[in-house]
Amino acid sequence: MQKLPRAVRRLIEKFERLPGIGPKSAQRLVFYLLHNPDHELEDFAERLIALKKETVTCEICHNVSESNPCSICTDSSRDKNVLCVVEQPLDLLALERSEQFKGLYHVLHGSISPLNNIGPDQIFLKDLLGRLDGVEELIVATNPTMEGEATALYISELITNRLGDNSPRITRIGHGLPVGADIEYADGVTLARALEGRRKI
Amino acid sequence: MQKLPRAVRRLIEKFERLPGIGPKSAQRLVFYLLHNPDHELEDFAERLIALKKETVTCEICHNVSESNPCSICTDSSRDKNVLCVVEQPLDLLALERSEQFKGLYHVLHGSISPLNNIGPDQIFLKDLLGRLDGVEELIVATNPTMEGEATALYISELITNRLGDNSPRITRIGHGLPVGADIEYADGVTLARALEGRRKI
Repeated sequence: MQKLPRAVRRLIEKFERLPGIGPKSAQRLVFYLLHNPDHELEDFAERLIALKKETVTCEICHNVSESNPCSICTDSSRDKNVLCVVEQPLDLLALERSEQFKGLYHVLHGSISPLNNIGPDQIFLKDLLGRLDGVEELIVATNPTMEGEATALYISELITNRLGDNSPRITRIGHGLPVGADIEYADGVTLARALEGRRKI
Repeated sequence: MQKLPRAVRRLIEKFERLPGIGPKSAQRLVFYLLHNPDHELEDFAERLIALKKETVTCEICHNVSESNPCSICTDSSRDKNVLCVVEQPLDLLALERSEQFKGLYHVLHGSISPLNNIGPDQIFLKDLLGRLDGVEELIVATNPTMEGEATALYISELITNRLGDNSPRITRIGHGLPVGADIEYADGVTLARALEGRRKI
């Protein structure tokens, strides 16, 4: 049987390892790239190498950034009394897009997930405690998944146990129906949360 | 609003241009790569550059290969009297996997598609005529799409016009229900083709 050239196979292997890309998609991507000019591939390769060389993790909030500390942590116009905990840098970005939150962030880079051997020590949780001095509210914006909920609960208990009366107000982002959704098609858990979170109009 | 670091944005742009990868997937892929160690990214980059450097297009059949002519064209055990025309190298690979075809191939690298400004001169069609000397059968295995059918028809007419009585037998791969399919869910055109292509049992 005719086999693919080695260089093609080796690149397919790399693409296959990316999340959400199966063997068929990887093949298609590599054959697409084969039709690209040489300089396009070199440019792609350069950008891959630059990805980690030109980015740092902010040592305060752990966001991915060009500078350390990052532009949010050093922005004097932001409210230092409110801290928002998120799982991933992309979550931070989504919250920034909403243009509603003017405080600071703390990026965990994951959530507690015993099934995947990820405990509190495998995420950036430890130094969160050291950041709470003077903070009035801590918004826990982890995902509304099992892992995200467990992480939120863990954070809340950890802080209350350690800081006692000095703990900031700990809140969880609201759960319920997303804007534009259909009640008819909403799942039961979401509806239950939406009812729990009801507000006076 | 917080913007992504330049290196991250630039790599997202590259991934976005790949077929089937939208802005959201591109973001996810790049943030996944951010968690990879440096040497993994360098390896990925090297493989990208090697892709075109270590592969050639066979000057006979235009398949992507490590050698020129490719291993199929130089394989003396293959039947030189039968030629199979396919659109893409991946089609050739799929046919090889079936282990049914022992002849030679001709890869067009596309199909005639006036809507996308691809005419007969934009695909490797011209030198197909020069390969027909002594060929008994030409199997046209272009895709059963509008473009694939148009290409098949064009090839058939081109050869009959040019070679007249010297043309090889020109055949089209069979159309019908794929193995394992449900007649209940088959579309009308496929069923019509399946009826046309019925065989005595």
